Amino acid sequence: MEDCIFCRIARGELPCHKVYEDDKVIAFEDISPVSEGHTLVVPKQHAENLFEISAEDLTAVHLAGQKIVRAIRKALDPVGVAVLQLNGRGVNQIVMHYHVHLIPRAAGGPALPVSDWGAQEGDPEALAGTAGKIAAVM
Amino acid sequence: MEDCIFCRIARGELPCHKVYEDDKVIAFEDISPVSEGHTLVVPKQHAENLFEISAEDLTAVHLAGQKIVRAIRKALDPVGVAVLQLNGRGVNQIVMHYHVHLIPRAAGGPALPVSDWGAQEGDPEALAGTAGKIAAVM
Repeated sequence: MEDCIFCRIARGELPCHKVYEDDKVIAFEDISPVSEGHTLVVPKQHAENLFEISAEDLTAVHLAGQKIVRAIRKALDPVGVAVLQLNGRGVNQIVMHYHVHLIPRAAGGPALPVSDWGAQEGDPEALAGTAGKIAAVM
Repeated sequence: MEDCIFCRIARGELPCHKVYEDDKVIAFEDISPVSEGHTLVVPKQHAENLFEISAEDLTAVHLAGQKIVRAIRKALDPVGVAVLQLNGRGVNQIVMHYHVHLIPRAAGGPALPVSDWGAQEGDPEALAGTAGKIAAVM
């Protein structure tokens, strides 16, 4: 898309701190990183979100993401890596072009804000009801 | 693996609130949901994390995840969906069998704890340095 910032990066019209590129995917450092090594993996072909991306590009992004996460491990030796992908302004998707965040946590670094939510057990009947609603439209 | 809880669910030895299953993947409601419809997508073949999972299973999980996220949209009409996958105890991976969280946010529901981190712009020189370190080991 003409004015999409990630399309412009993919076309080389805007600079980025690039870590990887192939014919379908480009990956670069997030300019507002949660932690050192916070990397975005982006399909070159525009798609707004997981609802819209082609199966081919979705596969290419995640296979590239696996290569990159292994490189992040070699380069930065983190204690873990969170992989996050947001769909919709209601969950704080900022750039409306599908992208996967790879967010390493450094040894001794602060806990990642994206990976801790104080899990509390749900009601089994409610869970069964929800599972039924989703399964019914698969 | 013998005692892995997700392997036992995949083998049918433990119950789950199932929403989807094929030959490579099973998906079910998280018993400690962040929100209604919080679903886990799991490869049947054991792999601890993104570093270890086969390309084939990684692809199968994400293609199934796309189908399921579309069903979640039809069933629950959320304002957005966060997709999260944690690698390592340092980022709060609890079950050491690769799994993808699909976490919808309901209209009018609370902000998802996993999707907001108060982004702050990073130092361009530091970003360039990190990109170089990662790219060098790709």
